[in-house]
Amino acid sequence: MGDVIEMLAAGLPAEALVTDPEVMASYARDMASFSAVGEPLAVVTPRTVEDVQHVMRTATAARVPVVPQGARTGLSGGANAVDGCIVLSLRKMDRIVEIDPVDRIAVVEPGVVNAVLSRAVAEQGLYYPPDPSSWEQCTIGGNIGTGAGGLCCVKYGVTAEYVLGLDVVLVDGRLLSTGRRTAKGVAGYDLTRLFVGSEGTLGVVVKAVVALRPAPPQQLALVAEFPSTAAACAAVCAIMEGGHVPSLLELMDATTIRAVNAMAQMGLPESTEALLLAAFDTPDPAADLAALGELCTAAGATDVVPAQDAAESELLLQARRLSLTALERISTATMIDDVCVPRGRLGEMLDGVAAIAAEYDLTIGVCAHAGDGNTHPVVCFDAHDPDESRRARESFDAIMALGLELGGTITGEHGVGLLKRDWLAQELGPTGLELQRGIKAVFDPLGLLNPGKVF
Amino acid sequence: MGDVIEMLAAGLPAEALVTDPEVMASYARDMASFSAVGEPLAVVTPRTVEDVQHVMRTATAARVPVVPQGARTGLSGGANAVDGCIVLSLRKMDRIVEIDPVDRIAVVEPGVVNAVLSRAVAEQGLYYPPDPSSWEQCTIGGNIGTGAGGLCCVKYGVTAEYVLGLDVVLVDGRLLSTGRRTAKGVAGYDLTRLFVGSEGTLGVVVKAVVALRPAPPQQLALVAEFPSTAAACAAVCAIMEGGHVPSLLELMDATTIRAVNAMAQMGLPESTEALLLAAFDTPDPAADLAALGELCTAAGATDVVPAQDAAESELLLQARRLSLTALERISTATMIDDVCVPRGRLGEMLDGVAAIAAEYDLTIGVCAHAGDGNTHPVVCFDAHDPDESRRARESFDAIMALGLELGGTITGEHGVGLLKRDWLAQELGPTGLELQRGIKAVFDPLGLLNPGKVF
Repeated sequence: MGDVIEMLAAGLPAEALVTDPEVMASYARDMASFSAVGEPLAVVTPRTVEDVQHVMRTATAARVPVVPQGARTGLSGGANAVDGCIVLSLRKMDRIVEIDPVDRIAVVEPGVVNAVLSRAVAEQGLYYPPDPSSWEQCTIGGNIGTGAGGLCCVKYGVTAEYVLGLDVVLVDGRLLSTGRRTAKGVAGYDLTRLFVGSEGTLGVVVKAVVALRPAPPQQLALVAEFPSTAAACAAVCAIMEGGHVPSLLELMDATTIRAVNAMAQMGLPESTEALLLAAFDTPDPAADLAALGELCTAAGATDVVPAQDAAESELLLQARRLSLTALERISTATMIDDVCVPRGRLGEMLDGVAAIAAEYDLTIGVCAHAGDGNTHPVVCFDAHDPDESRRARESFDAIMALGLELGGTITGEHGVGLLKRDWLAQELGPTGLELQRGIKAVFDPLGLLNPGKVF
Repeated sequence: MGDVIEMLAAGLPAEALVTDPEVMASYARDMASFSAVGEPLAVVTPRTVEDVQHVMRTATAARVPVVPQGARTGLSGGANAVDGCIVLSLRKMDRIVEIDPVDRIAVVEPGVVNAVLSRAVAEQGLYYPPDPSSWEQCTIGGNIGTGAGGLCCVKYGVTAEYVLGLDVVLVDGRLLSTGRRTAKGVAGYDLTRLFVGSEGTLGVVVKAVVALRPAPPQQLALVAEFPSTAAACAAVCAIMEGGHVPSLLELMDATTIRAVNAMAQMGLPESTEALLLAAFDTPDPAADLAALGELCTAAGATDVVPAQDAAESELLLQARRLSLTALERISTATMIDDVCVPRGRLGEMLDGVAAIAAEYDLTIGVCAHAGDGNTHPVVCFDAHDPDESRRARESFDAIMALGLELGGTITGEHGVGLLKRDWLAQELGPTGLELQRGIKAVFDPLGLLNPGKVF
């Protein structure tokens, strides 16, 4: 393997090649639980497309696997090192190449942090919607790899809908350009979309053309308290059926509410079984919130509190933003799930998760992008307690099975990685799986790109 | 070949199998010019998924090519029969299976006509945006096959953005389900999107889950007259740069204006070199139109006429809707192009097309979805005049080359079909082409699905 290091070194600046075991260890994994972590042979932090091409040529010549990485904030193990791999961290390729307000696009390198791009385009009156919770850390390349979502999706959709074109280094080092920088285009199969959510298994994204929108008005939020999750979910259905287009529609269950209260003394009503948070970024958000609030009341909300201004809105949304951190304090470890169901089945999903928590004797808090039907059950467990860890792992499977049973998907926005590999086969079925493997073989005949992930 | 007919007949209702040459001839082609038309062996008009599976099993067993068809309103020859093929017309699979206002989806068979779906969902306060000019005839299956667009795309995007999941019969008769009916989902590679725009070369779509939106307010339109296309294109850039989100932003050049006047005596100003039509479906469209009108005036518009109500808006938009019909009356044949360029290059595209018209001594009218940068140069020529036909064909190549030179794509929304096959290779480059062919081989190893199209 010394050979491989030499081959890498021959074509890279010295500072781009890391072989120190301690430093390499810091690149070994993302934020997923229950996912195997291997030992890399080397970590490369390229700054140029040519660096990436050199790495891929070397990997193909030496038959060494490559694991592409963004900021490693992923939750499915997709960025975890495999034994003997080259970890290819794209974080240093972090230039915003271009922002074009006429074509409403940005051209970026993969290592650009989501929040950095968001702020840069905001300065020009533009908006890059995808906003995963990790938006201050995660990179656009990672967002593309996982198909990341966020709070905005109920109105603005997921990352996939904002990727117009890509430059990709293929496993053999060739550079492929896909897609376009025009508003429309249907020339050939949509390779761009194929790369989105492919978790580094088809190629290494080195540049992206992303679509932007005009910046909307600042959103105004409302919080509604419900005596049951069923009532909150009924409100969600009524809101969507009523033709509303909120810019945010989030749900927190009782476990999450209590965890947030315990951490931040936010004074959330402990007797409440579910909170809905909604916002509009429309020309008249107060009027839209009032109409939405009425639907909440009709569905059984015990209290509806609209914010009066942007500052109050941010305060209301803090409760949601703190949810994960608060749940993480309940025990020594968490496992975050990502099951998306049809909106009409959201109530059943929440009831089912509560039943699973009882059955496995675990604390499971649920935050949900309710407007999308996308739930994040957070299983809190003591990683030092083998029995509780086992139950946590089993509850995860039970939650997946429930999601599929309700007509949902095993991943709304986090990706498959290692964590849900077995469940992917279940969701796709044998024919779908066979075709997906066929596509993988077209791009990566030697199986060197992020091996063992997704499939 | 009698064998194949017998094999088909053995598994199909009698009325689903057509072998009468005259009837078959009516299924031979779509609306593209300059595209080869073959003679089918048989035409099948299935009503069920099982019928389609039987056709595909037969085709694979007998190694007979299959050409899937919608309403044959396509403009690239993608639905043209090839010699000895089975034409598979999906028009009779035309059930709207489900409309769900909570999940904002419809489940449809491929033969549902676009306008029929649009009206059905409108009755429930919902909106299916994609609106190709042929929307009263074209089918959702055809829209998916070609990746169709329309007037709405400047605000609402193209067909691809509304397809969530598909049922597809593969070449060997197996049934594949892709995607989801949830708002989000990133489980595995995006096969759904791969089928959109694949022009029947990967499989036969037999069911689709499409996303709907709440019905927007009725749009209000404006027309602005410009002394030059350059001024009109400058206005388009100013409008998009200014953060406006019109629901329609169309351009007609002088040739088109005169053709419409000649046909419909609409009293359009003949001295005008370009018209912009814009509309908003926002809560206060009059205010938005006023702001947009000011940008037009600043860019040099000689007159700006906003509609006062929906009826007046429709009247203004009639001019645009009649454009193609009016241009078709200029000569015996037309060839409709579909080049999309970055918005900032729209002016150069229009100037370039005018220069090409002069160089090849042809009448070329341009209508453009200006807000998308998507131009439809319409080459008018006498099909009975071999020299003019040759010049028309050559001007088409010149227009393609110009589009690519300006950073555009050879097809914004019509697809590749036969017409642009050679140009696709140019746009994709050898690496892209090789990968696309690799994907084709995964789905259709024997090359039986719509052979000779796209690649």
